[in-house]
Amino acid sequence: MAPDARQRRRITILGSTGSIGTSTLDVVRQLGGRERYEVVALTGNGNVELLAAQARDCGARLVVTADESRYADLKDALSGSGIAAAAGRSALLDAASGDADWVMAAIVGTAGLAPTLAAAKRGADIALANKECLVSAGDLFVQAVAQGGGRLIPVDSEHSAIFQALEDDQRHAVERIVLTASGGPFRTWSREQMAGVTADIARAHPNWSMGLKISIGSASMFNKALEMIEAKHLFDVRPDQIEVVVHPQSIIHSMVGYVDGSVLAQLGAPDMRTAIGYALTYPTRSALNVDRLDFAKLSRLDFEAPDEDRFPALRLARTALERGGLQGAIMNAAEEVAFHAFVGGRLGFLSMADIAEQVMDKLTHLPPASSMDDVFAADEEARRVAAGLIG
Amino acid sequence: MAPDARQRRRITILGSTGSIGTSTLDVVRQLGGRERYEVVALTGNGNVELLAAQARDCGARLVVTADESRYADLKDALSGSGIAAAAGRSALLDAASGDADWVMAAIVGTAGLAPTLAAAKRGADIALANKECLVSAGDLFVQAVAQGGGRLIPVDSEHSAIFQALEDDQRHAVERIVLTASGGPFRTWSREQMAGVTADIARAHPNWSMGLKISIGSASMFNKALEMIEAKHLFDVRPDQIEVVVHPQSIIHSMVGYVDGSVLAQLGAPDMRTAIGYALTYPTRSALNVDRLDFAKLSRLDFEAPDEDRFPALRLARTALERGGLQGAIMNAAEEVAFHAFVGGRLGFLSMADIAEQVMDKLTHLPPASSMDDVFAADEEARRVAAGLIG
Repeated sequence: MAPDARQRRRITILGSTGSIGTSTLDVVRQLGGRERYEVVALTGNGNVELLAAQARDCGARLVVTADESRYADLKDALSGSGIAAAAGRSALLDAASGDADWVMAAIVGTAGLAPTLAAAKRGADIALANKECLVSAGDLFVQAVAQGGGRLIPVDSEHSAIFQALEDDQRHAVERIVLTASGGPFRTWSREQMAGVTADIARAHPNWSMGLKISIGSASMFNKALEMIEAKHLFDVRPDQIEVVVHPQSIIHSMVGYVDGSVLAQLGAPDMRTAIGYALTYPTRSALNVDRLDFAKLSRLDFEAPDEDRFPALRLARTALERGGLQGAIMNAAEEVAFHAFVGGRLGFLSMADIAEQVMDKLTHLPPASSMDDVFAADEEARRVAAGLIG
Repeated sequence: MAPDARQRRRITILGSTGSIGTSTLDVVRQLGGRERYEVVALTGNGNVELLAAQARDCGARLVVTADESRYADLKDALSGSGIAAAAGRSALLDAASGDADWVMAAIVGTAGLAPTLAAAKRGADIALANKECLVSAGDLFVQAVAQGGGRLIPVDSEHSAIFQALEDDQRHAVERIVLTASGGPFRTWSREQMAGVTADIARAHPNWSMGLKISIGSASMFNKALEMIEAKHLFDVRPDQIEVVVHPQSIIHSMVGYVDGSVLAQLGAPDMRTAIGYALTYPTRSALNVDRLDFAKLSRLDFEAPDEDRFPALRLARTALERGGLQGAIMNAAEEVAFHAFVGGRLGFLSMADIAEQVMDKLTHLPPASSMDDVFAADEEARRVAAGLIG
């Protein structure tokens, strides 16, 4: 083994075929590829062709598809490469618990909970792109990271911005966290106009190119609601220290206000690779080929207060934060059911938040989770209640 | 001596009756006053009444007026207080060299050079508000601080912003420094309109309340030119890494761009006390009663490229940076003479930069300073040449 090979960082990418996973592999390539990074495992779902191509390109040791029906195709696609293949839930958990120093947790949704938790428990540094770990199981997850001894580095552009603007030794001096929000495509619409929105309209987000769930979540500002809950767990702040401001250009990715009146902000072009690179090389920074901001060309940055009447998700997040316990998990699960009903044309755009609120109110009696089973049970219960309300 | 008294930080304020000095005393009061700070010395010029009142208020041990003709009045004003009084240049130097841990260097102009250098040599932490130390004697001054072993913490809002946005261990990853500039009252004026400007018009600065010299310097963007040179010495960057962007609201105080595309910015209300407090308590932050930014109320932040045709001072700063040596001292001295001629009605607004440029071009033969005497000699020579050109 060459001396430099021993210094390579061992990394695993959970969810490598999605947009975060693909960008992570691009960042790895930019920062030296196989010379500096040993890819322990890549995991994905049904797109085994892309998975195999990624694995050949970066020289991964192991590839896992969560979709067992695609196992044979994955093996075929990897034939002759010497790369190991595996499939199914437990193979995914094994891959997450492997010997990587750094794990990109980019599996979307509740499916990301168990693998990310496994990686955290083993003590890997976690680059967190999955929202559910903090929204649904924040207390348990933060505890698992602390016990494992790894670092938790957010990848979401907003939380990465706060993480970058947060001086390590000055957490006691943080007065507030200011999450910026694009405001989505309906920023200037009336409640009446919003009531008539369909999935196709909501999908057209002004700044970022992303999946349907995220686009709709941006349009309803439900994503921002989730981010408020994530911020609470990531930065250990009180609900009243979390502020949201609408900033349509999405150039200031978020800010930290200190007790001396000073505000530190992180800015950048809308490109996830900066946040991914920061998570990969933290606490140092490495050169990346991404667009630079040209302030004269930007010309102006706008800000406005969010309207919680038109975007009730923000109000729900405050309720969830104040109630604590499983309310985040419940809000998220109920909204996921409502989202699918909206996309299927069975629920109006504004009714998604109504459903989430009703489900949250109905399930206030659930005690805080003492295990992941409690989280999964609350998630199921919330989905059941939401489905019942939608009918 | 009470135990807590022994832990008090010993501070000296050079230039305590000016706006920075007064704000420093307010910050000291807010952060615990005599309980936490022992004021070793206050120095000022002719306003001995204010000096004496400040000294009584904060319990200073020594007060020095640079103006020997006011010595008797100072003694009178301090009678019965037990506070020592002194006057004149050498008393000022003695005060600067005293046993303070932290010295606010807020004497305006070339007069600030010798006392600030004395404090730096002795190893005190220097909170730097004087521009000339870096503009005229940057290499020597930075060297003196390094040899003395104290820290150099900028107080200027722009440089404080950069200092705050600069991650200590990531200086190698800095790609550029973005100095923001209000653009002054003539931001949108044509060259023709600017040619007819008088001192009274120039004095009306939109955002900050400050002295005449600073107001005119803001209107001509000559202050920004000085700040570019200061930035070079403070942050050890190349001239091509220093960018200026016009930002009329002066909310973003300045920014640092990193090699990964990330930009960190420091923002705040236009109140020097945040930067002063940061300099006093660095590397920690303490709570200050200053206005907080309300982003929704701010509504918008604008940016535009500076126009070096209308604001030639920026071009001069680049020339001075590229030439190095004593060109900063020469630019500053020539401009000071030109400023007085402008205020006296003997020189047009736009001609101030012409004079500075001509003097700089005439004195390119001067070698880099090897002592402060070289700096003073270049300063005098530049003033003489400038006066000759103005006639």
